Amino acid sequence: MNMEKSSTLVVFNGDLDKAIASFIIATGSAAMGNKVTMFFTFWGLNILRKDEYVPVKKSFLENMFGKMMPRGANRLGISKMNMGGIGSKLMKKIMRDKNIATLPELMEMAKDLDVQIIACAMSMDVLGITREELIDGIEYAGVATYLAAAEESQVNLFI
Amino acid sequence: MNMEKSSTLVVFNGDLDKAIASFIIATGSAAMGNKVTMFFTFWGLNILRKDEYVPVKKSFLENMFGKMMPRGANRLGISKMNMGGIGSKLMKKIMRDKNIATLPELMEMAKDLDVQIIACAMSMDVLGITREELIDGIEYAGVATYLAAAEESQVNLFI
Amino acid sequence: MNMEKSSTLVVFNGDLDKAIASFIIATGSAAMGNKVTMFFTFWGLNILRKDEYVPVKKSFLENMFGKMMPRGANRLGISKMNMGGIGSKLMKKIMRDKNIATLPELMEMAKDLDVQIIACAMSMDVLGITREELIDGIEYAGVATYLAAAEESQVNLFI
Repeated sequence: MNMEKSSTLVVFNGDLDKAIASFIIATGSAAMGNKVTMFFTFWGLNILRKDEYVPVKKSFLENMFGKMMPRGANRLGISKMNMGGIGSKLMKKIMRDKNIATLPELMEMAKDLDVQIIACAMSMDVLGITREELIDGIEYAGVATYLAAAEESQVNLFI
Repeated sequence: MNMEKSSTLVVFNGDLDKAIASFIIATGSAAMGNKVTMFFTFWGLNILRKDEYVPVKKSFLENMFGKMMPRGANRLGISKMNMGGIGSKLMKKIMRDKNIATLPELMEMAKDLDVQIIACAMSMDVLGITREELIDGIEYAGVATYLAAAEESQVNLFI
Repeated sequence: MNMEKSSTLVVFNGDLDKAIASFIIATGSAAMGNKVTMFFTFWGLNILRKDEYVPVKKSFLENMFGKMMPRGANRLGISKMNMGGIGSKLMKKIMRDKNIATLPELMEMAKDLDVQIIACAMSMDVLGITREELIDGIEYAGVATYLAAAEESQVNLFI
C-alpha cells in the first residue's frame, strides 16, 4: 500500500462552476504535497477540449454531439442561472474583477503542480471525442486505472 | 475493522448518464474483488423501478409523483442535452452501435458480481414508491446502514 | 494522525433535495459519534442564508446575483420536477404529512450534534454574499481547511 497521501477526483459534469471547484480542490491538494488524479468522464471531457475547431472524421451522430457540446474551458456554462450563457459570463467577469484565478489559469496551475489528468477512453468513444480534439499533456485510460488510484486515496470525490 | 477493500456509492441522481457511470464504477470495482454497496436514494430510486406498471394503492400526491417520474432503467433521461428524450435515445443508440454495455446489462452484471443494491427506505416513503414497484433482489435500509458500509470503504462517492 | 472517525461533506448544490440528503448523512454520522464537517460552497451557500432580507452594500452584479438566488432553507427548489417551486412545496408537504424532519429541523439537529458548518470564503466573494446574510453559529474558511478535514475522514462526499 502506498503511504503517500493522494486525492482522486471524477469530473463528470462539464459546468464552469463545478470545473472551477474541481480544479481549486485539485490544485489545493497538490499544493499541500499530495498526489492528485483527475479522471474526466462524460460531459467533464468538454473541459479538456481545445478552444479551436479540430477537423476530424466523425459519424453523423458524433458530429452532432460534438457541435452541441461546449468546446473547452472558455465556453462552459454554469450549472444554475446560466441564462443562455449570461450567468457564465457574469461569473467570469466577477472572478476577474476580484483577481480570483480563472479556469484556464487553474488548469495551468494544475499542470505545473503535476496533477495527473486522465480522459476516460470509454466516454470519448460514446461522445465521439478524439484525442486530437483534447488539450495536450493528458493521459487516456479506463475505469480500472481510475479505481486503482481511488483505492489508494484519502479523498475521493465525484463532481 | 474489516480489512477487505470496499466501495460504497450513493446514487442520488436518476439520469441515464449518471446511472451508467455509477454501474461502470460499481461493476469495475466488484470485478477487482472489492465488496461494493450501492445506496439508491431520491431520484436514483427510479433506476430500480420495474419497467411495467404495478398497481398499488397510493395517495393523490404519491400517485402524481409516481406518474411523472421515469419507470426503470429503460426510460431515464440524460443530465445534459436530453431534448425531451432524444438525447437519451441517441446515447443508447451510440452505445449499442459501439458494443458498449447498456444500463440493463450493467445492472445484470452488478447482480452477477454480488454488488449489494440498497433502496433508501426514507426516500421511498417521500416519493411514495413501494417495494412492489422495485426490481427483485435488492435490500431496503436507511442512512445508518449506508454509513456503516461507507465508513469501512476506501472509495466513497455521491453520484 | 487523528484516530477519531470523521465525515466531511462538500455541499456545492443548493437544491432542497440535495440539502436534505446532505443533512441526513451529516446528522446520521454525527449521531453515530463521528466528527462531521460540512463545507458549503457556491450554490450551497444559499442553504445558509438568513430567511429575512439583510441590507448590505453590494455592487450591481452582486446585488443581482443576491436577488436571484434563494434566501435560505425555506426557499430552495428541488433538482428535478421543481415546476417553478410546486415540486418543492409538494415535497415539503409530503415530508410534513409523514412526520419526516424538515430541512430547518435537520439543520437544528446538526447544530445540536456539533456538526461543524463552514462557509467557503472564496465562493462568498464570487457570489457577493456577506457574513451578515448567513445564519449564526457557522465558520468561514477556504479550501485548505476543507482539505485538512477531508484527508482525515473516512467518508468524503461532494454533494
